[in-house]
Amino acid sequence: MLQQKHLIAGEWVDGQDFFENSPVEGTADRFPLGTAEQMHLACEAAEEAFWSFGYSDRFKRAEFLVKIAEEIEKRGEALSLQGVKETGLPKARLEGERGRTTGQLRLFAEHILKAEYLDCRYDEALPDRAPAPRPDMRLMQRPIGPVAVFGASNFPLAFSTAGGDTAAALAAGCPVVVKAHQAHPGVSDIIAQAINAARIACDIHPGVFGQIHGDGPVVGKALVEHPYIKAVGFTGSLQGGRALFDLCAARPEPIPFFGELGSINPVFVLDRALASRGIEIAKNWATSLTMGAGQFCTNPGIIIINDDKQGDTFIETARDALNAIAPQTMLTNGIAAAFRNGGQNVLASQIATEVIPNTSTDRQCSPHLFVTDTKNWLENDLLSEEVFGPFAIIIRASGLDDKLKIAKQLKGQLTCTIQLDAEDSQAASELLPILERKAGRILANGFPTGVEVCDTMVHGGPYPASTNFGATSVGTMSIRRFLRPVCYQNIPESLLPEDIK
Amino acid sequence: MLQQKHLIAGEWVDGQDFFENSPVEGTADRFPLGTAEQMHLACEAAEEAFWSFGYSDRFKRAEFLVKIAEEIEKRGEALSLQGVKETGLPKARLEGERGRTTGQLRLFAEHILKAEYLDCRYDEALPDRAPAPRPDMRLMQRPIGPVAVFGASNFPLAFSTAGGDTAAALAAGCPVVVKAHQAHPGVSDIIAQAINAARIACDIHPGVFGQIHGDGPVVGKALVEHPYIKAVGFTGSLQGGRALFDLCAARPEPIPFFGELGSINPVFVLDRALASRGIEIAKNWATSLTMGAGQFCTNPGIIIINDDKQGDTFIETARDALNAIAPQTMLTNGIAAAFRNGGQNVLASQIATEVIPNTSTDRQCSPHLFVTDTKNWLENDLLSEEVFGPFAIIIRASGLDDKLKIAKQLKGQLTCTIQLDAEDSQAASELLPILERKAGRILANGFPTGVEVCDTMVHGGPYPASTNFGATSVGTMSIRRFLRPVCYQNIPESLLPEDIK
Repeated sequence: MLQQKHLIAGEWVDGQDFFENSPVEGTADRFPLGTAEQMHLACEAAEEAFWSFGYSDRFKRAEFLVKIAEEIEKRGEALSLQGVKETGLPKARLEGERGRTTGQLRLFAEHILKAEYLDCRYDEALPDRAPAPRPDMRLMQRPIGPVAVFGASNFPLAFSTAGGDTAAALAAGCPVVVKAHQAHPGVSDIIAQAINAARIACDIHPGVFGQIHGDGPVVGKALVEHPYIKAVGFTGSLQGGRALFDLCAARPEPIPFFGELGSINPVFVLDRALASRGIEIAKNWATSLTMGAGQFCTNPGIIIINDDKQGDTFIETARDALNAIAPQTMLTNGIAAAFRNGGQNVLASQIATEVIPNTSTDRQCSPHLFVTDTKNWLENDLLSEEVFGPFAIIIRASGLDDKLKIAKQLKGQLTCTIQLDAEDSQAASELLPILERKAGRILANGFPTGVEVCDTMVHGGPYPASTNFGATSVGTMSIRRFLRPVCYQNIPESLLPEDIK
Repeated sequence: MLQQKHLIAGEWVDGQDFFENSPVEGTADRFPLGTAEQMHLACEAAEEAFWSFGYSDRFKRAEFLVKIAEEIEKRGEALSLQGVKETGLPKARLEGERGRTTGQLRLFAEHILKAEYLDCRYDEALPDRAPAPRPDMRLMQRPIGPVAVFGASNFPLAFSTAGGDTAAALAAGCPVVVKAHQAHPGVSDIIAQAINAARIACDIHPGVFGQIHGDGPVVGKALVEHPYIKAVGFTGSLQGGRALFDLCAARPEPIPFFGELGSINPVFVLDRALASRGIEIAKNWATSLTMGAGQFCTNPGIIIINDDKQGDTFIETARDALNAIAPQTMLTNGIAAAFRNGGQNVLASQIATEVIPNTSTDRQCSPHLFVTDTKNWLENDLLSEEVFGPFAIIIRASGLDDKLKIAKQLKGQLTCTIQLDAEDSQAASELLPILERKAGRILANGFPTGVEVCDTMVHGGPYPASTNFGATSVGTMSIRRFLRPVCYQNIPESLLPEDIK
């Protein structure tokens, strides 16, 4: 069932050194550790594929995307079994994620069929214009070339081998080279088989998709530094992402690094909402915070409430709701350890009071909750750092002024949320312009987990939420990352790309 | 007439140290050398202005842009006099550039009135969707915050203080802090006065526009590293641009650097075109190459022709046409010296034959022309480097294969041009896909100098032509550089921005 090999130029290629995955139960599987030379071969094949795939018609690429979705569905049961084994995520979650993965492949197929993404523009010739005539000028978006994609730990399907970055890049016309995530090499392996089967069925150049297993410092570095690679899509930690960003920027030819990094996704509970719905908000927040063991990019890790009696009730409710949640399996031993360390650092700092102590062991984690006041939060950067997992800090604020101060000091976020009642409108109107500068998505009366894949989604935001600088990594607009505008001046019609003839 | 001061938060501010401009004729003017502290004050004012200007309505901003254009026109004569004095550009050229500058301010005003640039999207709520309802979701583009703009040496008006970058940023809703170019501080001074007058007339926050004179290593560095600055617009040399790019990437919060750097803008002359129109092409190329003393970003610095008798005729014609062109005044002494050095390096390398020797003295320059063969060009990177000014290399190629090899080895370019006749279509269709990957704009049967400011213009391209990564610095699409998408999820209508209610 598993190939346990790299996929390079359509061939399954073995290694000389190996690593094993860390299954939650059962026996480990062995995968090859890629080399820089193998990465080079995959990039070279991608470049070669670009000369046909980059100029292929949209209909052909849409067919390819749909075929990949079908091939993934064929392997549904195997994916779920391997996914449960490697990540500890429940089967139902993995099935849902598979649906999202095939759904977004089909969404991109539909999106490119509509052709709007090409942003075709036309300035007609003005032969009689003085002092100089204007030539016939046309513009359209064209694919940038081979794209590097890094699998994410927390979405073995939707953000990994055939995830959003790959779907958007292939839709644009860019071949993809994936560095498989070491936390779920088996899932990545099965997905690569699905893509390869679709490629063969659609008769597309074998270089269009490659996948290498291995270490970031070896194959990840070789990938982002490869001269044929023209952009990188990445979802992961701030530390790892920044290191790759720096490599991209330091290249002889710098390339864009589209990294989705860390976020603590603050939730502001305004006065009337706290008074009227405090208990409900606390319960729903606890659910959002612990969904998937808190391992979502949009996990609401801090919440800001008033320092009053209703705030006390909120804390008690949240504490009880979180205490009722059973320990969950974390994605990897490393993530579980980082979760415990992050909480330990906050505890040791003595700038926040522990409300629910850490009772996690090994790869199992239960919620870890702190409370602090506005002053302590504002004065200690430590409390703004993401702790990946079911970790949260409640900040007690004395009225709107404190909330505005907290909002102004926030670093870039994927999301910011306001819980408000109608009577909170004035306060919300003061908060919103600040939050708008901090996040890619602003929510009212909801929770940020659960990211729609649609035309309006913005999954990105100011650094360190992302290094996307005005892009999104989820939703149809994410295709823009892999396109560049080209202007055609006075080009004879027979030579123009089909879409702007 | 001249303030000879910085403009900070609406006030004219003096310095403690000073520098003088280098007029072509007449007495020098004295300008203050800015400090990092003065730059800080200008950035702080820009941030403060953003809280109103960033949320202002489009109609107000359009009015501001038009008013700036009017205030520039009022100062037309003074600008031309100062421009001729500082840059040596002819008065007619400066008048034309003034028209382009006011024209692009008005174009951006019209552009934002149309509202399409906001890219508003709407996914309506699906309250009954299973398994989870979809909330009401909206997306629009929002301004990113204060923007840094660096004036360019070669366009004292159209690419400097109120040039394309400033116009696009203000149109988007971003306050601007300009580092005035030291080559034309007086022109920058008068333009800053025009912007400030427009700002007062339109009752806009004084921080919306600031300008600091001085050295790149001091005020330029302070500008791009300032935490309030969210993007940089730059037009200039590869060396200076890369240094600033590196500073932007190394910030604690990295920001995008939209640099338009170097380009040699190759022209490929195909067989039939050379045979039928070689003499005409040679003459027109000579005109394009020497326009504005060759000091255009899109100057066609290399041209590829066949190694045959028609090629000989082409070289003779080009040589005669270039020899007939009188020496012209360069923008600065530094640019004139760099032009001479660049040509000297090629001569010393002995990998190209000098056809027209360098007879330039001081700030006057006449054309410098070389011929080389395909092999030498392919093997020597030196021949791919831009020499700013009327400098050119003719490459002799033996048929289409040589031309394809040259195209494949090109670095990123602002433009690539094909000269073709109908019978050259097959060759052109092989060349075009390669050139498309190398340049932001592809031309047929024209010359790249003369950049339209329109909806279809792409003035950018792969590095080192630009660090724009899929953007343009000229034309209406350039506004995208200063916008970021924001998603509004379930936000009550009263709180939504006007344009997506």
